[in-house]
Amino acid sequence: MELKTTHIFSVRFSEVDSMRVVWHGAYPLYLEDAREAFGKEFALEYMRIADNGFFAPLVELNIKYLRPLVYGKSYRIEITYCPTEAAKIVFEYKIYDLETEALHTTAQSIQVFMDMHYQLLWYKPDFYLEWEAQHQ
Amino acid sequence: MELKTTHIFSVRFSEVDSMRVVWHGAYPLYLEDAREAFGKEFALEYMRIADNGFFAPLVELNIKYLRPLVYGKSYRIEITYCPTEAAKIVFEYKIYDLETEALHTTAQSIQVFMDMHYQLLWYKPDFYLEWEAQHQ
Amino acid sequence: MELKTTHIFSVRFSEVDSMRVVWHGAYPLYLEDAREAFGKEFALEYMRIADNGFFAPLVELNIKYLRPLVYGKSYRIEITYCPTEAAKIVFEYKIYDLETEALHTTAQSIQVFMDMHYQLLWYKPDFYLEWEAQHQ
Amino acid sequence: MELKTTHIFSVRFSEVDSMRVVWHGAYPLYLEDAREAFGKEFALEYMRIADNGFFAPLVELNIKYLRPLVYGKSYRIEITYCPTEAAKIVFEYKIYDLETEALHTTAQSIQVFMDMHYQLLWYKPDFYLEWEAQHQ
Repeated sequence: MELKTTHIFSVRFSEVDSMRVVWHGAYPLYLEDAREAFGKEFALEYMRIADNGFFAPLVELNIKYLRPLVYGKSYRIEITYCPTEAAKIVFEYKIYDLETEALHTTAQSIQVFMDMHYQLLWYKPDFYLEWEAQHQ
Repeated sequence: MELKTTHIFSVRFSEVDSMRVVWHGAYPLYLEDAREAFGKEFALEYMRIADNGFFAPLVELNIKYLRPLVYGKSYRIEITYCPTEAAKIVFEYKIYDLETEALHTTAQSIQVFMDMHYQLLWYKPDFYLEWEAQHQ
Repeated sequence: MELKTTHIFSVRFSEVDSMRVVWHGAYPLYLEDAREAFGKEFALEYMRIADNGFFAPLVELNIKYLRPLVYGKSYRIEITYCPTEAAKIVFEYKIYDLETEALHTTAQSIQVFMDMHYQLLWYKPDFYLEWEAQHQ
Repeated sequence: MELKTTHIFSVRFSEVDSMRVVWHGAYPLYLEDAREAFGKEFALEYMRIADNGFFAPLVELNIKYLRPLVYGKSYRIEITYCPTEAAKIVFEYKIYDLETEALHTTAQSIQVFMDMHYQLLWYKPDFYLEWEAQHQ
Protein backbone atom coordinates (compact mmCIF):
# COMPACT_ATOMS: atom_id res chain seq x y z
CA MET A 1 0.00 0.00 0.00
CA GLU A 2 1.42 3.38 -1.00
CA LEU A 3 0.77 6.18 1.49
CA LYS A 4 0.22 9.43 -0.36
CA THR A 5 -1.44 12.75 0.42
CA THR A 6 -2.35 15.56 -1.91
CA HIS A 7 -2.43 19.20 -0.88
CA ILE A 8 -3.48 22.25 -2.93
CA PHE A 9 -1.83 25.62 -2.40
CA SER A 10 -1.68 29.08 -3.92
CA VAL A 11 1.46 31.14 -4.21
CA ARG A 12 1.56 34.07 -1.78
CA PHE A 13 2.68 37.52 -2.91
CA SER A 14 5.44 37.54 -0.30
CA GLU A 15 6.90 34.27 -1.62
CA VAL A 16 7.62 35.78 -5.04
CA ASP A 17 10.98 37.42 -5.66
CA SER A 18 11.96 40.27 -7.97
CA MET A 19 12.11 37.82 -10.93
CA ARG A 20 8.36 37.36 -10.25
CA VAL A 21 8.74 33.65 -9.46
CA VAL A 22 8.67 31.91 -6.10
CA TRP A 23 11.99 32.35 -4.29
CA HIS A 24 13.73 28.97 -4.02
CA GLY A 25 13.98 29.32 -0.24
CA ALA A 26 10.18 29.37 0.13
CA TYR A 27 9.80 25.73 -0.97
CA PRO A 28 10.72 24.15 2.40
CA LEU A 29 7.50 25.73 3.70
CA TYR A 30 5.45 24.09 0.95
CA LEU A 31 7.05 20.75 1.76
CA GLU A 32 6.34 21.24 5.44
CA ASP A 33 2.70 22.02 4.71
CA ALA A 34 2.57 18.77 2.74
CA ARG A 35 4.10 16.83 5.64
CA GLU A 36 1.53 18.33 8.00
CA ALA A 37 -1.28 17.34 5.62
CA PHE A 38 0.18 13.83 5.48
CA GLY A 39 0.48 13.77 9.27
CA LYS A 40 -3.15 14.73 9.66
CA GLU A 41 -4.38 12.13 7.20
CA PHE A 42 -2.23 9.26 8.51
CA ALA A 43 -1.89 10.15 12.20
CA LEU A 44 1.80 11.06 12.14
CA GLU A 45 1.71 14.72 13.21
CA TYR A 46 4.66 16.51 14.85
CA MET A 47 2.56 16.75 18.03
CA ARG A 48 1.92 13.00 18.07
CA ILE A 49 5.63 12.33 17.68
CA ALA A 50 6.34 14.84 20.48
CA ASP A 51 3.66 13.27 22.69
CA ASN A 52 5.58 10.00 22.33
CA GLY A 53 8.70 11.74 23.57
CA PHE A 54 10.55 12.26 20.29
CA PHE A 55 11.54 14.86 17.76
CA ALA A 56 11.90 14.08 14.07
CA PRO A 57 14.31 16.70 12.70
CA LEU A 58 15.25 16.82 9.03
CA VAL A 59 18.74 15.59 8.26
CA GLU A 60 18.55 15.87 4.50
CA LEU A 61 16.59 17.92 2.00
CA ASN A 62 16.93 17.76 -1.78
CA ILE A 63 14.93 19.95 -4.13
CA LYS A 64 14.87 20.01 -7.95
CA TYR A 65 13.32 23.16 -9.36
CA LEU A 66 12.18 22.04 -12.82
CA ARG A 67 9.81 24.88 -13.66
CA PRO A 68 9.14 28.12 -11.73
CA LEU A 69 6.04 28.65 -9.60
CA VAL A 70 4.34 31.97 -10.23
CA TYR A 71 2.12 34.33 -8.29
CA GLY A 72 -1.60 34.03 -8.79
CA LYS A 73 -1.51 30.36 -9.73
CA SER A 74 -2.45 27.27 -7.74
CA TYR A 75 -0.47 24.07 -7.49
CA ARG A 76 -0.95 20.54 -6.24
CA ILE A 77 1.72 18.95 -4.07
CA GLU A 78 1.86 15.18 -3.71
CA ILE A 79 3.72 13.73 -0.75
CA THR A 80 4.57 10.02 -0.77
CA TYR A 81 5.86 8.00 2.16
CA CYS A 82 8.94 5.90 1.26
CA PRO A 83 9.31 2.83 3.55
CA THR A 84 12.86 2.14 4.74
CA GLU A 85 14.62 -0.30 7.05
CA ALA A 86 16.60 2.54 8.66
CA ALA A 87 15.35 4.51 11.67
CA LYS A 88 14.33 7.31 9.33
CA ILE A 89 11.24 8.90 7.83
CA VAL A 90 11.63 9.46 4.10
CA PHE A 91 9.21 11.46 1.96
CA GLU A 92 9.12 12.26 -1.73
CA TYR A 93 7.31 15.30 -3.07
CA LYS A 94 6.03 16.37 -6.46
CA ILE A 95 4.52 19.76 -7.27
CA TYR A 96 2.19 19.98 -10.28
CA ASP A 97 0.44 22.88 -11.99
CA LEU A 98 -3.21 22.46 -11.01
CA GLU A 99 -4.44 23.21 -14.54
CA THR A 100 -1.85 21.85 -16.92
CA GLU A 101 -0.64 18.96 -14.73
CA ALA A 102 2.94 19.91 -15.66
CA LEU A 103 5.50 18.72 -13.10
CA HIS A 104 7.25 21.78 -11.60
CA THR A 105 9.24 20.46 -8.66
CA THR A 106 10.49 17.22 -7.15
CA ALA A 107 11.94 16.90 -3.68
CA GLN A 108 12.96 14.43 -1.02
CA SER A 109 13.32 14.80 2.75
CA ILE A 110 14.88 12.50 5.34
CA GLN A 111 14.08 12.76 9.04
CA VAL A 112 15.60 10.91 11.99
CA PHE A 113 14.32 10.36 15.51
CA MET A 114 15.78 12.10 18.55
CA ASP A 115 14.73 11.80 22.15
CA MET A 116 14.06 14.82 24.34
CA HIS A 117 17.75 14.92 25.29
CA TYR A 118 18.61 15.43 21.59
CA GLN A 119 20.09 11.91 21.37
CA LEU A 120 19.80 10.24 17.98
CA LEU A 121 17.86 6.94 17.92
CA TRP A 122 19.55 4.12 16.04
CA TYR A 123 16.41 1.96 16.17
CA LYS A 124 12.85 2.90 15.30
CA PRO A 125 10.91 3.86 18.43
CA ASP A 126 8.02 1.58 19.42
CA PHE A 127 5.26 4.02 18.57
CA TYR A 128 6.66 4.28 15.05
CA LEU A 129 6.93 0.50 14.61
CA GLU A 130 3.27 0.31 15.58
CA TRP A 131 2.40 3.09 13.16
CA GLU A 132 4.23 1.25 10.38
CA ALA A 133 2.44 -2.00 11.22
CA GLN A 134 -0.90 -0.23 11.00
CA HIS A 135 -0.09 1.36 7.65
CA GLN A 136 1.29 -1.41 5.51
CA MET B 1 21.46 59.46 29.22
CA GLU B 2 19.90 58.23 26.01
CA LEU B 3 20.60 54.58 25.22
CA LYS B 4 20.98 54.13 21.49
CA THR B 5 22.60 51.58 19.20
CA THR B 6 23.33 51.79 15.52
CA HIS B 7 23.36 48.78 13.21
CA ILE B 8 24.24 48.65 9.50
CA PHE B 9 22.54 46.15 7.18
CA SER B 10 22.25 45.30 3.52
CA VAL B 11 19.04 44.22 1.83
CA ARG B 12 18.99 40.53 0.94
CA PHE B 13 17.73 39.35 -2.46
CA SER B 14 15.11 37.17 -0.79
CA GLU B 15 13.65 40.13 1.11
CA VAL B 16 12.72 41.96 -2.08
CA ASP B 17 9.30 41.40 -3.62
CA SER B 18 8.15 41.53 -7.23
CA MET B 19 7.93 45.34 -7.01
CA ARG B 20 11.71 45.17 -6.42
CA VAL B 21 11.46 46.75 -2.96
CA VAL B 22 11.73 45.08 0.44
CA TRP B 23 8.50 43.30 1.33
CA HIS B 24 6.85 45.06 4.29
CA GLY B 25 6.77 41.79 6.26
CA ALA B 26 10.58 41.58 6.26
CA TYR B 27 11.00 44.64 8.50
CA PRO B 28 10.29 42.86 11.83
CA LEU B 29 13.52 40.96 11.19
CA TYR B 30 15.49 44.21 10.76
CA LEU B 31 13.99 45.51 13.99
CA GLU B 32 14.87 42.26 15.76
CA ASP B 33 18.45 42.48 14.53
CA ALA B 34 18.56 46.01 15.95
CA ARG B 35 17.21 44.80 19.32
CA GLU B 36 19.87 42.08 19.39
CA ALA B 37 22.57 44.66 18.64
CA PHE B 38 21.19 46.84 21.44
CA GLY B 39 21.07 43.83 23.78
CA LYS B 40 24.70 43.01 23.05
CA GLU B 41 25.87 46.58 23.62
CA PHE B 42 23.86 47.20 26.79
CA ALA B 43 23.69 43.70 28.31
CA LEU B 44 19.97 43.09 27.71
CA GLU B 45 20.03 40.08 25.40
CA TYR B 46 17.13 37.59 25.09
CA MET B 47 19.37 34.98 26.68
CA ARG B 48 20.13 37.20 29.67
CA ILE B 49 16.41 37.82 30.16
CA ALA B 50 15.76 34.07 29.88
CA ASP B 51 18.59 33.30 32.32
CA ASN B 52 16.76 35.50 34.82
CA GLY B 53 13.64 33.39 34.32
CA PHE B 54 11.62 35.64 32.02
CA PHE B 55 10.43 36.09 28.48
CA ALA B 56 9.92 39.51 26.92
CA PRO B 57 7.38 38.98 24.12
CA LEU B 58 6.26 41.82 21.88
CA VAL B 59 2.76 43.10 22.57
CA GLU B 60 2.76 45.93 20.10
CA LEU B 61 4.54 46.77 16.87
CA ASN B 62 4.02 49.90 14.78
CA ILE B 63 5.86 50.52 11.51
CA LYS B 64 5.73 53.53 9.18
CA TYR B 65 7.13 52.81 5.73
CA LEU B 66 8.13 56.30 4.52
CA ARG B 67 10.39 55.32 1.62
CA PRO B 68 11.07 51.86 0.14
CA LEU B 69 14.25 49.91 0.84
CA VAL B 70 15.85 48.47 -2.28
CA TYR B 71 18.12 45.56 -3.12
CA GLY B 72 21.81 46.23 -3.37
CA LYS B 73 21.75 49.18 -0.97
CA SER B 74 22.85 49.45 2.66
CA TYR B 75 20.97 51.11 5.46
CA ARG B 76 21.60 52.24 9.02
CA ILE B 77 19.07 51.38 11.71
CA GLU B 78 19.04 53.33 14.95
CA ILE B 79 17.35 51.79 17.98
CA THR B 80 16.60 54.01 20.98
CA TYR B 81 15.50 52.84 24.41
CA CYS B 82 12.44 54.74 25.71
CA PRO B 83 12.25 54.73 29.53
CA THR B 84 8.77 54.09 30.97
CA GLU B 85 7.19 53.66 34.39
CA ALA B 86 5.22 50.63 33.17
CA ALA B 87 6.58 47.07 33.33
CA LYS B 88 7.42 47.27 29.64
CA ILE B 89 10.39 47.62 27.31
CA VAL B 90 9.80 50.26 24.66
CA PHE B 91 12.07 50.85 21.68
CA GLU B 92 11.95 53.32 18.82
CA TYR B 93 13.63 52.63 15.50
CA LYS B 94 14.71 54.74 12.56
CA ILE B 95 16.11 53.40 9.29
CA TYR B 96 18.28 55.73 7.21
CA ASP B 97 19.87 55.42 3.79
CA LEU B 98 23.58 54.98 4.52
CA GLU B 99 24.62 57.37 1.75
CA THR B 100 21.93 60.05 1.55
CA GLU B 101 20.91 59.99 5.25
CA ALA B 102 17.27 60.08 4.10
CA LEU B 103 14.87 58.67 6.69
CA HIS B 104 13.13 55.60 5.22
CA THR B 105 11.30 53.97 8.12
CA THR B 106 10.21 54.67 11.68
CA ALA B 107 8.93 52.03 14.07
CA GLN B 108 8.10 51.35 17.69
CA SER B 109 7.92 48.11 19.64
CA ILE B 110 6.56 47.37 23.11
CA GLN B 111 7.52 44.26 25.07
CA VAL B 112 6.20 42.96 28.39
CA PHE B 113 7.66 40.51 30.86
CA MET B 114 6.31 37.01 31.36
CA ASP B 115 7.55 34.32 33.71
CA MET B 116 8.26 30.77 32.57
CA HIS B 117 4.61 29.86 33.22
CA TYR B 118 3.56 32.49 30.67
CA GLN B 119 2.15 34.75 33.41
CA LEU B 120 2.31 38.47 32.71
CA LEU B 121 4.31 40.54 35.21
CA TRP B 122 2.60 43.71 36.43
CA TYR B 123 5.79 44.95 38.09
CA LYS B 124 9.29 45.20 36.67
CA PRO B 125 11.36 42.15 37.67
CA ASP B 126 14.36 42.80 39.94
CA PHE B 127 17.00 42.07 37.35
CA TYR B 128 15.43 44.71 35.11
CA LEU B 129 15.22 47.32 37.89
CA GLU B 130 18.93 46.75 38.44
CA TRP B 131 19.61 47.04 34.74
CA GLU B 132 17.70 50.33 34.65
CA ALA B 133 19.60 51.65 37.67
CA GLN B 134 22.88 50.85 35.96
CA HIS B 135 21.88 52.57 32.74
CA GLN B 136 20.47 55.91 33.76
CA MET C 1 -22.47 48.30 3.91
CA GLU C 2 -19.49 46.94 5.80
CA LEU C 3 -17.06 44.95 3.67
CA LYS C 4 -15.63 42.08 5.69
CA THR C 5 -14.00 38.75 4.92
CA THR C 6 -13.27 35.86 7.22
CA HIS C 7 -10.34 33.51 6.74
CA ILE C 8 -9.42 30.41 8.78
CA PHE C 9 -5.79 29.42 9.26
CA SER C 10 -3.68 26.96 11.24
CA VAL C 11 -0.36 27.81 12.80
CA ARG C 12 2.59 26.27 10.97
CA PHE C 13 5.41 24.58 12.89
CA SER C 14 7.95 26.93 11.31
CA GLU C 15 6.07 30.01 12.53
CA VAL C 16 6.52 29.04 16.18
CA ASP C 17 9.58 30.28 18.08
CA SER C 18 11.51 28.76 20.96
CA MET C 19 8.89 30.08 23.42
CA ARG C 20 6.46 27.78 21.55
CA VAL C 21 4.27 30.66 20.40
CA VAL C 22 4.02 32.25 16.97
CA TRP C 23 6.93 34.63 16.38
CA HIS C 24 5.65 38.21 16.20
CA GLY C 25 7.25 38.68 12.79
CA ALA C 26 5.06 35.95 11.26
CA TYR C 27 1.85 37.96 11.64
CA PRO C 28 2.33 40.18 8.55
CA LEU C 29 1.92 36.96 6.54
CA TYR C 30 -1.41 36.18 8.24
CA LEU C 31 -2.58 39.71 7.51
CA GLU C 32 -1.48 39.40 3.89
CA ASP C 33 -3.38 36.13 3.54
CA ALA C 34 -6.44 37.94 4.89
CA ARG C 35 -6.00 40.77 2.37
CA GLU C 36 -5.74 38.23 -0.44
CA ALA C 37 -8.92 36.51 0.77
CA PHE C 38 -10.62 39.93 0.85
CA GLY C 39 -9.29 40.73 -2.60
CA LYS C 40 -10.68 37.50 -4.02
CA GLU C 41 -14.11 38.01 -2.47
CA PHE C 42 -14.45 41.69 -3.41
CA ALA C 43 -12.42 41.86 -6.64
CA LEU C 44 -9.52 43.91 -5.30
CA GLU C 45 -6.59 41.53 -5.80
CA TYR C 46 -2.99 42.71 -6.15
CA MET C 47 -3.09 41.47 -9.76
CA ARG C 48 -6.19 43.52 -10.53
CA ILE C 49 -4.53 46.61 -9.09
CA ALA C 50 -1.39 45.86 -11.13
CA ASP C 51 -3.45 45.28 -14.29
CA ASN C 52 -4.79 48.80 -13.82
CA GLY C 53 -1.22 50.09 -13.74
CA PHE C 54 -0.73 50.60 -10.02
CA PHE C 55 0.95 49.21 -6.92
CA ALA C 56 -0.57 49.48 -3.46
CA PRO C 57 2.38 49.26 -1.05
CA LEU C 58 1.88 49.35 2.70
CA VAL C 59 2.88 52.61 4.35
CA GLU C 60 1.76 51.74 7.86
CA LEU C 61 1.28 48.58 9.89
CA ASN C 62 0.17 48.41 13.51
CA ILE C 63 -0.22 45.14 15.39
CA LYS C 64 -1.41 44.53 18.96
CA TYR C 65 -0.51 41.07 20.26
CA LEU C 66 -3.12 40.51 22.99
CA ARG C 67 -2.77 36.74 23.43
CA PRO C 68 -0.22 34.37 21.87
CA LEU C 69 -1.06 32.06 18.95
CA VAL C 70 0.12 28.50 19.48
CA TYR C 71 1.08 25.57 17.27
CA GLY C 72 -1.59 22.99 16.56
CA LYS C 73 -4.49 25.41 16.92
CA SER C 74 -6.66 27.09 14.32
CA TYR C 75 -7.69 30.71 14.25
CA ARG C 76 -10.15 32.93 12.43
CA ILE C 77 -8.98 36.24 11.02
CA GLU C 78 -11.54 38.93 10.17
CA ILE C 79 -10.51 41.68 7.79
CA THR C 80 -12.69 44.79 7.54
CA TYR C 81 -12.43 47.50 4.91
CA CYS C 82 -12.35 51.04 6.43
CA PRO C 83 -13.61 53.68 3.97
CA THR C 84 -11.56 56.90 3.87
CA GLU C 85 -11.53 60.15 1.89
CA ALA C 86 -7.77 59.90 1.44
CA ALA C 87 -6.14 58.09 -1.51
CA LYS C 88 -5.47 55.12 0.75
CA ILE C 89 -6.69 51.60 1.42
CA VAL C 90 -7.22 50.98 5.12
CA PHE C 91 -7.93 47.57 6.65
CA GLU C 92 -8.57 46.44 10.20
CA TYR C 93 -7.90 42.90 11.33
CA LYS C 94 -8.99 40.76 14.25
CA ILE C 95 -7.71 37.28 15.01
CA TYR C 96 -9.93 35.00 17.13
CA ASP C 97 -9.44 31.54 18.60
CA LEU C 98 -11.65 29.31 16.47
CA GLU C 99 -12.98 27.40 19.49
CA THR C 100 -13.13 29.87 22.36
CA GLU C 101 -13.81 33.01 20.27
CA ALA C 102 -11.23 34.82 22.43
CA LEU C 103 -9.69 37.85 20.66
CA HIS C 104 -5.95 37.27 20.24
CA THR C 105 -4.75 40.02 17.92
CA THR C 106 -5.85 43.33 16.44
CA ALA C 107 -4.10 45.08 13.58
CA GLN C 108 -4.43 47.87 11.05
CA SER C 109 -2.74 48.41 7.70
CA ILE C 110 -2.65 51.45 5.43
CA GLN C 111 -1.76 51.22 1.74
CA VAL C 112 -1.24 53.98 -0.81
CA PHE C 113 -1.31 53.93 -4.60
CA MET C 114 1.81 54.25 -6.74
CA ASP C 115 2.08 54.21 -10.50
CA MET C 116 4.53 52.00 -12.36
CA HIS C 117 7.18 54.73 -12.05
CA TYR C 118 6.90 54.50 -8.24
CA GLN C 119 5.19 57.91 -8.05
CA LEU C 120 2.72 58.35 -5.20
CA LEU C 121 -0.87 59.15 -6.23
CA TRP C 122 -2.48 62.02 -4.33
CA TYR C 123 -5.92 61.21 -5.75
CA LYS C 124 -7.70 57.89 -5.90
CA PRO C 125 -7.19 56.26 -9.32
CA ASP C 126 -10.31 55.85 -11.50
CA PHE C 127 -10.49 52.08 -11.23
CA TYR C 128 -10.56 52.42 -7.44
CA LEU C 129 -13.28 55.11 -7.50
CA GLU C 130 -15.35 52.70 -9.59
CA TRP C 131 -14.63 49.86 -7.20
CA GLU C 132 -15.74 52.03 -4.27
CA ALA C 133 -18.93 53.04 -6.06
CA GLN C 134 -19.74 49.39 -6.67
CA HIS C 135 -19.14 48.43 -3.05
CA GLN C 136 -20.99 51.03 -0.99
CA MET D 1 42.89 27.94 -8.32
CA GLU D 2 40.06 27.21 -5.93
CA LEU D 3 37.59 30.06 -5.47
CA LYS D 4 36.34 30.10 -1.92
CA THR D 5 34.75 32.69 0.39
CA THR D 6 34.19 32.56 4.11
CA HIS D 7 31.31 34.27 5.85
CA ILE D 8 30.57 34.48 9.60
CA PHE D 9 26.99 34.60 10.87
CA SER D 10 25.05 34.44 14.11
CA VAL D 11 21.77 32.59 14.53
CA ARG D 12 18.76 34.92 14.83
CA PHE D 13 16.09 34.32 17.46
CA SER D 14 13.44 34.13 14.76
CA GLU D 15 15.28 31.35 12.92
CA VAL D 16 15.03 28.99 15.89
CA ASP D 17 12.05 26.67 16.16
CA SER D 18 10.30 25.22 19.22
CA MET D 19 12.99 22.51 19.48
CA ARG D 20 15.38 25.45 20.08
CA VAL D 21 17.46 24.70 16.99
CA VAL D 22 17.49 26.51 13.65
CA TRP D 23 14.48 25.50 11.53
CA HIS D 24 15.69 23.53 8.51
CA GLY D 25 13.92 25.95 6.16
CA ALA D 26 16.08 28.86 7.34
CA TYR D 27 19.25 27.43 5.81
CA PRO D 28 18.59 28.57 2.21
CA LEU D 29 18.97 32.12 3.57
CA TYR D 30 22.39 31.30 5.05
CA LEU D 31 23.44 29.80 1.71
CA GLU D 32 22.18 32.85 -0.14
CA ASP D 33 24.14 35.14 2.18
CA ALA D 34 27.21 33.05 1.40
CA ARG D 35 26.58 33.36 -2.36
CA GLU D 36 26.25 37.13 -1.98
CA ALA D 37 29.53 37.25 -0.04
CA PHE D 38 31.15 35.18 -2.81
CA GLY D 39 29.63 37.45 -5.46
CA LYS D 40 31.05 40.53 -3.77
CA GLU D 41 34.52 39.06 -3.42
CA PHE D 42 34.72 37.63 -6.95
CA ALA D 43 32.55 40.08 -8.91
CA LEU D 44 29.66 37.70 -9.62
CA GLU D 45 26.77 39.47 -7.87
CA TYR D 46 23.12 38.96 -8.85
CA MET D 47 23.09 42.59 -10.02
CA ARG D 48 26.10 42.05 -12.27
CA ILE D 49 24.43 39.01 -13.81
CA ALA D 50 21.22 41.03 -14.26
CA ASP D 51 23.15 43.96 -15.79
CA ASN D 52 24.41 41.50 -18.39
CA GLY D 53 20.82 40.58 -19.21
CA PHE D 54 20.48 37.28 -17.36
CA PHE D 55 19.00 35.60 -14.33
CA ALA D 56 20.68 32.71 -12.54
CA PRO D 57 17.84 30.83 -10.79
CA LEU D 58 18.52 27.78 -8.65
CA VAL D 59 17.52 24.50 -10.21
CA GLU D 60 18.81 22.23 -7.50
CA LEU D 61 19.47 22.50 -3.79
CA ASN D 62 20.77 19.73 -1.54
CA ILE D 63 21.31 20.17 2.18
CA LYS D 64 22.69 17.71 4.75
CA TYR D 65 21.95 18.72 8.33
CA LEU D 66 24.70 16.93 10.27
CA ARG D 67 24.47 18.80 13.58
CA PRO D 68 21.92 21.41 14.69
CA LEU D 69 22.67 25.15 14.75
CA VAL D 70 21.62 26.84 17.98
CA TYR D 71 20.62 30.32 19.07
CA GLY D 72 23.31 32.51 20.57
CA LYS D 73 26.17 30.83 18.72
CA SER D 74 28.17 31.95 15.71
CA TYR D 75 29.10 29.87 12.70
CA ARG D 76 31.40 30.07 9.74
CA ILE D 77 30.08 29.20 6.28
CA GLU D 78 32.52 28.33 3.51
CA ILE D 79 31.31 28.57 -0.08
CA THR D 80 33.41 26.96 -2.82
CA TYR D 81 32.95 27.43 -6.56
CA CYS D 82 32.86 24.11 -8.47
CA PRO D 83 33.94 24.52 -12.11
CA THR D 84 31.80 22.63 -14.65
CA GLU D 85 31.61 22.27 -18.43
CA ALA D 86 27.83 22.70 -18.33
CA ALA D 87 26.12 26.11 -18.55
CA LYS D 88 25.64 26.05 -14.81
CA ILE D 89 26.97 27.66 -11.63
CA VAL D 90 27.68 25.07 -8.96
CA PHE D 91 28.55 25.91 -5.36
CA GLU D 92 29.38 23.74 -2.37
CA TYR D 93 28.86 24.95 1.18
CA LYS D 94 30.13 23.89 4.58
CA ILE D 95 28.98 25.35 7.90
CA TYR D 96 31.35 25.05 10.87
CA ASP D 97 31.03 25.93 14.54
CA LEU D 98 33.20 29.01 14.95
CA GLU D 99 34.72 27.76 18.22
CA THR D 100 34.93 23.97 17.94
CA GLU D 101 35.44 23.80 14.16
CA ALA D 102 32.90 20.94 14.10
CA LEU D 103 31.23 20.51 10.70
CA HIS D 104 27.46 21.11 11.09
CA THR D 105 26.09 21.31 7.58
CA THR D 106 27.05 20.55 3.99
CA ALA D 107 25.10 21.74 0.96
CA GLN D 108 25.24 22.10 -2.80
CA SER D 109 23.40 24.45 -5.15
CA ILE D 110 23.12 24.44 -8.94
CA GLN D 111 22.06 27.52 -10.91
CA VAL D 112 21.36 27.90 -14.61
CA PHE D 113 21.24 30.96 -16.83
CA MET D 114 18.03 32.41 -18.22
CA ASP D 115 17.58 35.45 -20.41
CA MET D 116 15.08 38.19 -19.62
CA HIS D 117 12.40 36.25 -21.52
CA TYR D 118 12.86 33.36 -19.07
CA GLN D 119 14.49 31.21 -21.76
CA LEU D 120 17.09 28.72 -20.54
CA LEU D 121 20.59 29.15 -21.97
CA TRP D 122 22.21 25.95 -23.20
CA TYR D 123 25.60 27.65 -23.54
CA LYS D 124 27.46 29.80 -21.08
CA PRO D 125 26.84 33.50 -21.80
CA ASP D 126 29.84 35.55 -22.93
CA PHE D 127 30.15 37.59 -19.74
CA TYR D 128 30.39 34.35 -17.77
CA LEU D 129 33.03 32.85 -20.07
CA GLU D 130 35.06 36.00 -19.50
CA TRP D 131 34.53 35.78 -15.76
CA GLU D 132 35.71 32.15 -15.81
CA ALA D 133 38.78 33.08 -17.84
CA GLN D 134 39.68 35.76 -15.33
CA HIS D 135 39.28 33.42 -12.38
CA GLN D 136 41.17 30.29 -13.31
